[in-house]
Amino acid sequence: MEKKIPYKIYLEENEIPKQWYNVRADMKNKPAPLLNPATLQPLTVEDLNPIFCEELNKMELDNDTRYFDIPTEVLDFYKMYRPSPLVRAYFLEKALDTPAKIYYKFEGNNTSGSHKLNSAIAQAYYAKKQGLKGITTETGAGQWGTALSMACAYFGLDCKVFMVKCSYEQKPFRREVMRTFGANVTPSPSNTTAVGRKILEEHPGTTGSLGCAISEAVEAAVTKEGYRYVLGSVLNQVLIHQSIIGQEVQTALKKYDIKPDILIACTGGGSNLGGFAAPFMGEMLRGEADYKIIAVEPASCPSFTKGKFAYDFCDTGRICPLAKMYTLGSQFIPSANHAGGLRFHGMSTILSQLYHDGLFECRAVEQNDVFKAAVTFARAEGTLPAPESSHAIKVAIDEALKCKESGEAKTIVFNLSGTGYFDLVAYEKYNSGVLTDEIPSDETIAGYLSQLPKLDL
Amino acid sequence: MEKKIPYKIYLEENEIPKQWYNVRADMKNKPAPLLNPATLQPLTVEDLNPIFCEELNKMELDNDTRYFDIPTEVLDFYKMYRPSPLVRAYFLEKALDTPAKIYYKFEGNNTSGSHKLNSAIAQAYYAKKQGLKGITTETGAGQWGTALSMACAYFGLDCKVFMVKCSYEQKPFRREVMRTFGANVTPSPSNTTAVGRKILEEHPGTTGSLGCAISEAVEAAVTKEGYRYVLGSVLNQVLIHQSIIGQEVQTALKKYDIKPDILIACTGGGSNLGGFAAPFMGEMLRGEADYKIIAVEPASCPSFTKGKFAYDFCDTGRICPLAKMYTLGSQFIPSANHAGGLRFHGMSTILSQLYHDGLFECRAVEQNDVFKAAVTFARAEGTLPAPESSHAIKVAIDEALKCKESGEAKTIVFNLSGTGYFDLVAYEKYNSGVLTDEIPSDETIAGYLSQLPKLDL
Repeated sequence: MEKKIPYKIYLEENEIPKQWYNVRADMKNKPAPLLNPATLQPLTVEDLNPIFCEELNKMELDNDTRYFDIPTEVLDFYKMYRPSPLVRAYFLEKALDTPAKIYYKFEGNNTSGSHKLNSAIAQAYYAKKQGLKGITTETGAGQWGTALSMACAYFGLDCKVFMVKCSYEQKPFRREVMRTFGANVTPSPSNTTAVGRKILEEHPGTTGSLGCAISEAVEAAVTKEGYRYVLGSVLNQVLIHQSIIGQEVQTALKKYDIKPDILIACTGGGSNLGGFAAPFMGEMLRGEADYKIIAVEPASCPSFTKGKFAYDFCDTGRICPLAKMYTLGSQFIPSANHAGGLRFHGMSTILSQLYHDGLFECRAVEQNDVFKAAVTFARAEGTLPAPESSHAIKVAIDEALKCKESGEAKTIVFNLSGTGYFDLVAYEKYNSGVLTDEIPSDETIAGYLSQLPKLDL
Repeated sequence: MEKKIPYKIYLEENEIPKQWYNVRADMKNKPAPLLNPATLQPLTVEDLNPIFCEELNKMELDNDTRYFDIPTEVLDFYKMYRPSPLVRAYFLEKALDTPAKIYYKFEGNNTSGSHKLNSAIAQAYYAKKQGLKGITTETGAGQWGTALSMACAYFGLDCKVFMVKCSYEQKPFRREVMRTFGANVTPSPSNTTAVGRKILEEHPGTTGSLGCAISEAVEAAVTKEGYRYVLGSVLNQVLIHQSIIGQEVQTALKKYDIKPDILIACTGGGSNLGGFAAPFMGEMLRGEADYKIIAVEPASCPSFTKGKFAYDFCDTGRICPLAKMYTLGSQFIPSANHAGGLRFHGMSTILSQLYHDGLFECRAVEQNDVFKAAVTFARAEGTLPAPESSHAIKVAIDEALKCKESGEAKTIVFNLSGTGYFDLVAYEKYNSGVLTDEIPSDETIAGYLSQLPKLDL
């Protein structure tokens, strides 16, 4: 007999997980190591320490520790906006007239507007603990920069954000949230770094790119006493911090004896998919349960569905380490899809290995279909979703409609990783019928893949 | 012995109040009736029915019924975003180093971004129940229009919003949220109404005003079969619907044996102050408890602190009913304060009577002080507040700092009625040090007050 499920399942404060989960401990096939681009040798903590925070580097390279204690200071901050609710989408089910039972974890209930805060506060904490003065980062769409500025305000750290110039100009609201939280926001490329000045000289009038902003943020960190660089996705440490999402989902489901059949999350660099799904993948790896897990990526940047599992550079400038991952080639520049958080040519090495091992499937979806699903969801459930999260919504709706056809009452759980309050330019285009999408042809992708570094390992 | 108070007190779904509270039932001195501007006779339900929904008109004029059952359909919708949390502001207390215990009710956790949804869904429900096709309204800053578009999407009602033209152009994001929820948004003045065409003829190039948008919305309602007009503040019915806020606060406080000393809310037309505080004022009127209740208004529009308690028109165009209220005169146009929701020359008749009878005090605060408090709050508590709500924050901080001086551990509760995600133009001005405020002199106000209608009642 199923318990009566409320619209929103809120856990108690003391049900916030006390540990982060590291899925690598349960993986038989560990992700391939990051390689130093100069020596092609696996990176060591010592290699990483000049750039990143020390404690985080240990986490980054630790394939064995299953659980890391969450520091009290981070747990205190989590209490500000966690536990986040697991919502039963009764209204969406009704709108779709489906026998499926749909749930979503809502990570957008904080001023950063997304799940990014879960890792930002952890990274800021370890920077503070190391005695640093500040941290630097880059931001495109702005969620990560906002989250980091909130975290730095909390710990009294200086926060330097290099924001891709076109976003800086087109998204003044994001910029102002960061400034309100005390961050120093610089449009990139800028005159404040050597690499920025070089780029400006070579490409006067450029509106910047994420690759360029990364280079500036790294330079700003390594050339200034007491600073380090931080990153909001792709890295193993980020997946560890984000595991709080999936663990909370597990606790909430258990509380109401709910057994999920299908788990869905969008994926760009992997922080969202990894955070939401890795704890469930752990159950699968340990042989305790079986789920159908679906990753969703934009058709305009189809790393999993059209990419190659190979060593590649993580950045366009080819200065960052090499990672073995599903990649479209480091020179691949996706079209201007409005899901800015999903526009990365590669993928988390952990998720790449798990995908390679068949732990989950992936679907690539087109931008207009995504916004159609977003509007259906908003009108039914009353929350305006982020374009990124709407990729998961699209597939959740697809699966719910399949249930309608088959008459099956499957339980579908997806991650609503953020809200769309700062994405209304995209909604305006969709509402006005002028939203387009640009999907790379197989030939185009083959061209980029042919440029992958040829390693003799 | 005080119970351990969690950061966020969430009530259970079944603790959402089942009834709305009507404070007039507990008032010995009832608010003076609305008068028909043509006859100067008290308005009847029959007078109101051609413009507003019938059930709502009964509520509007009912001085005696203490509780109204909340319809099941409205309760279902409330479950989507209610109960809203009562948050213990531990982080703000620490930042202020105060012995005061600060709590805030957070009404911004929904896509409309404010408490407005509480009344929007009620009004949409009664319109649907009456068999209407749609409803019309005006919106300035956009919170009310957004809330109403969400409510109409839920009940499948047509929603026509007349948005003050300068807001329509300056706040395209608000407009797009409404369109995403299916509303028809028209910049006002427009060619779609006779009054709009007249204004455009007389004032070509005008960017509109709230008064003009009201006139257009009313015309659109009364001239179209199956439509009525709705309003998001000032009215008695709105205070009734919003009473769900204060009742939830009472339940949460009771659950943890918390006795508030000071209750604080901002006030423009009164929907927020009335909704939050009226249930507590009811306790005072019935002699069950005593609280210090503080209303906060902008110094640029000081209806309570500088206005007169007299009959006046509710609109600049002098076509709406006369109400006995604290007013600055219907011709008073407040300066362009960024708390758009607080820029009304008058005040709810209920709250006006209660203020006259000494149930609460009022403070007028300056815009830069408000944003200073907003930034302190955001950095400490992690939520970017609406400029309107930040008026309450400013006074809550003032009171907490008084406690620091006196060493008293008073319990302060305020209403955080909304988020500032769509108010970043204002934050940008404040962050850049160019925010100004324009406070009317006593002479200016006296000039407007001398134009109050001379009634021989």
